[in-house]
Amino acid sequence: MADETHNESEAAPVATQALEDVVAAVLQGHGVTEDDARLVARTLVEADRRGIGSHGVMRLGIYVDRLKAGLVRARTEVTVERETPATAVLDGHHSMGQAVAARAMRLCLEKARTAHVAAVAVRNSSHFGAAAYWALMAPDEHMIGVAMSNTAPLMPPTGGRGARIGNNPLAVAVPARHERPLVLDMATSVVALGKVLLADKRGEPVPEGWGVTAAGEPTTDPKAILQGGFILPVGGPKGYGLSVMVDVLSGLLAGGVVGGEVRSMYRDFTAPSRIGHFFLAVDVGAFVPVEWFEDQVDAYIRYLRATPPAPGVERVMVPGEPEFLRAEAARTTVVLPRAVLEDVRRLAAEAGVDAGLVARLEAGPS
Amino acid sequence: MADETHNESEAAPVATQALEDVVAAVLQGHGVTEDDARLVARTLVEADRRGIGSHGVMRLGIYVDRLKAGLVRARTEVTVERETPATAVLDGHHSMGQAVAARAMRLCLEKARTAHVAAVAVRNSSHFGAAAYWALMAPDEHMIGVAMSNTAPLMPPTGGRGARIGNNPLAVAVPARHERPLVLDMATSVVALGKVLLADKRGEPVPEGWGVTAAGEPTTDPKAILQGGFILPVGGPKGYGLSVMVDVLSGLLAGGVVGGEVRSMYRDFTAPSRIGHFFLAVDVGAFVPVEWFEDQVDAYIRYLRATPPAPGVERVMVPGEPEFLRAEAARTTVVLPRAVLEDVRRLAAEAGVDAGLVARLEAGPS
Repeated sequence: MADETHNESEAAPVATQALEDVVAAVLQGHGVTEDDARLVARTLVEADRRGIGSHGVMRLGIYVDRLKAGLVRARTEVTVERETPATAVLDGHHSMGQAVAARAMRLCLEKARTAHVAAVAVRNSSHFGAAAYWALMAPDEHMIGVAMSNTAPLMPPTGGRGARIGNNPLAVAVPARHERPLVLDMATSVVALGKVLLADKRGEPVPEGWGVTAAGEPTTDPKAILQGGFILPVGGPKGYGLSVMVDVLSGLLAGGVVGGEVRSMYRDFTAPSRIGHFFLAVDVGAFVPVEWFEDQVDAYIRYLRATPPAPGVERVMVPGEPEFLRAEAARTTVVLPRAVLEDVRRLAAEAGVDAGLVARLEAGPS
Repeated sequence: MADETHNESEAAPVATQALEDVVAAVLQGHGVTEDDARLVARTLVEADRRGIGSHGVMRLGIYVDRLKAGLVRARTEVTVERETPATAVLDGHHSMGQAVAARAMRLCLEKARTAHVAAVAVRNSSHFGAAAYWALMAPDEHMIGVAMSNTAPLMPPTGGRGARIGNNPLAVAVPARHERPLVLDMATSVVALGKVLLADKRGEPVPEGWGVTAAGEPTTDPKAILQGGFILPVGGPKGYGLSVMVDVLSGLLAGGVVGGEVRSMYRDFTAPSRIGHFFLAVDVGAFVPVEWFEDQVDAYIRYLRATPPAPGVERVMVPGEPEFLRAEAARTTVVLPRAVLEDVRRLAAEAGVDAGLVARLEAGPS
């Protein structure tokens, strides 16, 4: 939920639409179809707009590297391996995670329209970007959406030293009537690794509880965490348990893999990542009248917002609200770290993207 | 997940079976049917056996008080308000939470047998004990079970000062083959309020991040938390978001209430608590062959257990394992705080429970 992009000192304003066009063109240059390229570009740019830079266009470089290495399939292939009216198992055949997730969540919503609750599990996918994007497909259809994914291990189980579990993310989105949906989008680690990197760059200690050394000793030294140490699950055994449950649902329910069999998309160029996902849709109208429910969610949102703020806090927000506000502020111009923008330019040049298109990245006065 | 009962200095060994019998007899003395009384007694005693004293027989007193006040219905009435093959909405008519939860989860599992994924939402229930008990009904049927409940507000939203959300618990249970199920059972607060009470009793500070003062300022003083202050959601916005999602699913999906409309069972003797629950069951066999899945869960458990332990840790356990180990150790004799045991005796005397039965509480050499 942190506004990571603005932590970077050198920030560059970029025209949002041009950024999406360039990112899509880069992906098309590597064989991705126009529709899928646009989809992936949209999810990356939207993450930047929402202030979740860790899931924004800074990922384009690694996506391209894996496409070039043949570890991610450019032409999406998703097969339905098993199906009932309320459930499905999909195989993503190592296609781009976003292309797989969009098809899986669409199928899940379609099934929930008649079955009223539906679950779709996916194996052999790739990094699907921010989990919220997929959960947020549900509220438009007056459904509650859940999206989760496993990732390569980077955290120890509680009491352990050794990376055994990913910071497996989990998102839930709930429809409101006049308000924006309620959205939870969380990784199961205390913090993103990026925050430890940032503290290290600034020479500052990190708070207690963020991480341990390679020996499993608690530390506030970011270097000790980064050099062989580990970030920890959020809330100790709670985050550990959540991470394990997301791993099982995303990894095993579709006949895929969990734990160390999920490969790091950054460190392992010998094999596809084999990431798995799990999607759930709950059709509100099968339980209570949709308008009543959405009015109640509106009322709940106003109730939460009316909480007196703590010292130094302007006002209390509801889950998902900070991201919506940032996205709205970044409708035409989104701020990227300069290094990320330079990376996009480099990738565009490599992929032979039209120079006129790239020139439009320069944001005019907004 | 903490072993709370053993934090009390004055501990009393009690015969497990006799404890269950006496607790059931007390409830029967207040008009609860034998079946429901046994069910409630079993869940309370099992929580004590599992080391979750906060959800054990220490709750019997408040259950009895609310039965006597007519705020909890002794004769369970649960009606199905709305139903599809995969979903149901139940009204618990303020019956005992355990009696309601058992019927709801049974219905959910029954529906999942044919629909393969099923969801049941419940309104107008009461405190249902430990959430894990209900999620754990699923693994026996080769299903993944999810159970959640809302509770009366005791935490502020992130950035707020004022109790607006409960520490709404969430449990997930996953079947294994030869191993015990994987179980997550978490409240969405950093810690149970009981741990703050304990630190206060011992005159010790609590760690940073556990709570804030009445003014919303961070504090390590347990008194400041207890006297008008608040415990915080686990992981800041993560626990806040989880709590809100559990509230919406448990409260609104069944046409019930959320936030401040859920009444405290301890502080509000003017009205029923109107607690709501949400249950989900996922039929593993509809996704992958059950034996393959359960073998993989076994392998995952062994993989997690094989993590090298951090300094001072004997061995790494999997989610749910500490509770199973404690429950097995407490098969015949369970250790209660002496004050809780005295309370049981007092309640037994009040309810006219047979003195011979009460005498059997004394645990022989185990």
